[in-house]
Amino acid sequence: MSLSEFELIRTYFYGATGERDDVVLGIGDDCALLRPRAGELVAAGMDTLVAGRHFREDVAPETLGHKALAVNLSDLAAVGAEPAWATLSLTLPRADTTWLAAFMQGFSALATAHGVQLVGGDTTRGPLSITVQVQGFVDESAALKRSAGHAGDRLLVSGTLGDAGLALQYAHAGKPVDAELRERLDRPTPRVTLGRLLAGQANAAIDISDGLLADLGHICAGSGTGAHIELDRLPLSAAVRDVAAAGDWSAPLGGGDDYELLFSVDPARLDEIVHLCRSAGERVAEIGELVQADGIKLIGPEECVVEGVPSGFDHFRD
Amino acid sequence: MSLSEFELIRTYFYGATGERDDVVLGIGDDCALLRPRAGELVAAGMDTLVAGRHFREDVAPETLGHKALAVNLSDLAAVGAEPAWATLSLTLPRADTTWLAAFMQGFSALATAHGVQLVGGDTTRGPLSITVQVQGFVDESAALKRSAGHAGDRLLVSGTLGDAGLALQYAHAGKPVDAELRERLDRPTPRVTLGRLLAGQANAAIDISDGLLADLGHICAGSGTGAHIELDRLPLSAAVRDVAAAGDWSAPLGGGDDYELLFSVDPARLDEIVHLCRSAGERVAEIGELVQADGIKLIGPEECVVEGVPSGFDHFRD
Repeated sequence: MSLSEFELIRTYFYGATGERDDVVLGIGDDCALLRPRAGELVAAGMDTLVAGRHFREDVAPETLGHKALAVNLSDLAAVGAEPAWATLSLTLPRADTTWLAAFMQGFSALATAHGVQLVGGDTTRGPLSITVQVQGFVDESAALKRSAGHAGDRLLVSGTLGDAGLALQYAHAGKPVDAELRERLDRPTPRVTLGRLLAGQANAAIDISDGLLADLGHICAGSGTGAHIELDRLPLSAAVRDVAAAGDWSAPLGGGDDYELLFSVDPARLDEIVHLCRSAGERVAEIGELVQADGIKLIGPEECVVEGVPSGFDHFRD
Repeated sequence: MSLSEFELIRTYFYGATGERDDVVLGIGDDCALLRPRAGELVAAGMDTLVAGRHFREDVAPETLGHKALAVNLSDLAAVGAEPAWATLSLTLPRADTTWLAAFMQGFSALATAHGVQLVGGDTTRGPLSITVQVQGFVDESAALKRSAGHAGDRLLVSGTLGDAGLALQYAHAGKPVDAELRERLDRPTPRVTLGRLLAGQANAAIDISDGLLADLGHICAGSGTGAHIELDRLPLSAAVRDVAAAGDWSAPLGGGDDYELLFSVDPARLDEIVHLCRSAGERVAEIGELVQADGIKLIGPEECVVEGVPSGFDHFRD
């Protein structure tokens, strides 16, 4: 490396994000020293992105910096937490300062937008890989959990489903990928504001990283319920709607990387919660319900035509 | 993979460590939910080990599980924190369950010994790499920092210096490595108890991961001091003493991976603090002092004979 690890840290990580009052000691010591918020829990999530597996080697580094933090903020959103601190482990084949500057630009812009301070981490040499750990605050009584669903709850989802999955399918097939779809794959929007709104309001919640069916499966397994999904109520972009209309539902049902929130609400509170979300400009759609029976039943315009059920599916085969 | 990610998690991570009362929600949701200790800071550190760079590919997985946590606990020790929670990101080339079981055995044994609960993380496929994030508690007024040294402070170090470095030198040279030296390289002992003792007592502190001179350089840079080191007071094992006597001081001065604590104390409190440490069975040795002049001066039996000053050295060339 032309720059030592310490020069890298000084140049690219110090002051990369805004400074929070609750950070007593940030980057540069053996540990960060952080002041938790009195009376609230600390929510902690960690996600790793590996080159060639979670992203194309040639993806723009600014985009990757955004995504590495976004997928973690999405975990905080899923429990209804307010983001606060991040630690970043960056493993790089070489000290490519142009790459690093662009990566940190993407990371920092998203961090700053959510009031997150980068407080520490590690920089090592090796095959390109990024691990982020994020922390935030949530009231114990308001925290959302996968396991908090009840039979009879209405199921809702944010945004649209399958855009990232379709982009990935096209990319794998060597087909051109529409800019809007690619944006959904490369630069997901963590639903932090929605998660905060839902804290203390929704019952179960999860972010859709493995695909709708897989993540719904986690809610069902955790909550001891089954679910019905009405296919014609799934919120789809025009591109995904066209593919689904041709009979292939794999992107909206199984495509990962959407990072939308899937959540369940008490039916008596449905209208109120939908109103709350929409008043805040958050797009949510009702797509089905949790039921007492086992398994997930897809209620389709053409009786459950589910082609190419994707890899995520086996995750909940039990 | 023969096992899905979720089966892996269920089999090898759930319940791998003891359960703490302050973990409201552990492994299995999007985030862990953790209850910080009222009135104390959260100390957070993160370290990554990459195959081929930080460890030999053929190292025993149980040993690697120990080391991945140990280097992180060492960061908590350096700030005087009491360990509490860990998150683990494990990137594996394949789901080798024998390897994974052994890795987790090493990780869990050390975690349990220090009352640490594994609360979450990520499991991905890719080139072997391990990132651990640890958190613990420390009083704001008692936390140790690199920057808290003063000119006149006496410098002390725990354990012995250079054993891990010498083991690494021998391994690289294809020489046989004595079992005791190899143990020091592969299974470092994080000085958590000593760090807790020193909290509120010592001034500056750091763990020696980059080598004595490099890490002392961090204390000097942070504290605005220089330092004198008396070579004949360095605590050395017989193996390292032999090599140093032959004129090669690179292992004790520059060998990383020792994970001993280097700390400074007010000279008026030296005897009291040494007594405190030794009464608790912690081996500490006085090796020099912080001074007002710039730079680090080595006071040697043969006037500063420092051969093969190692890679860590450039880290503090400013």
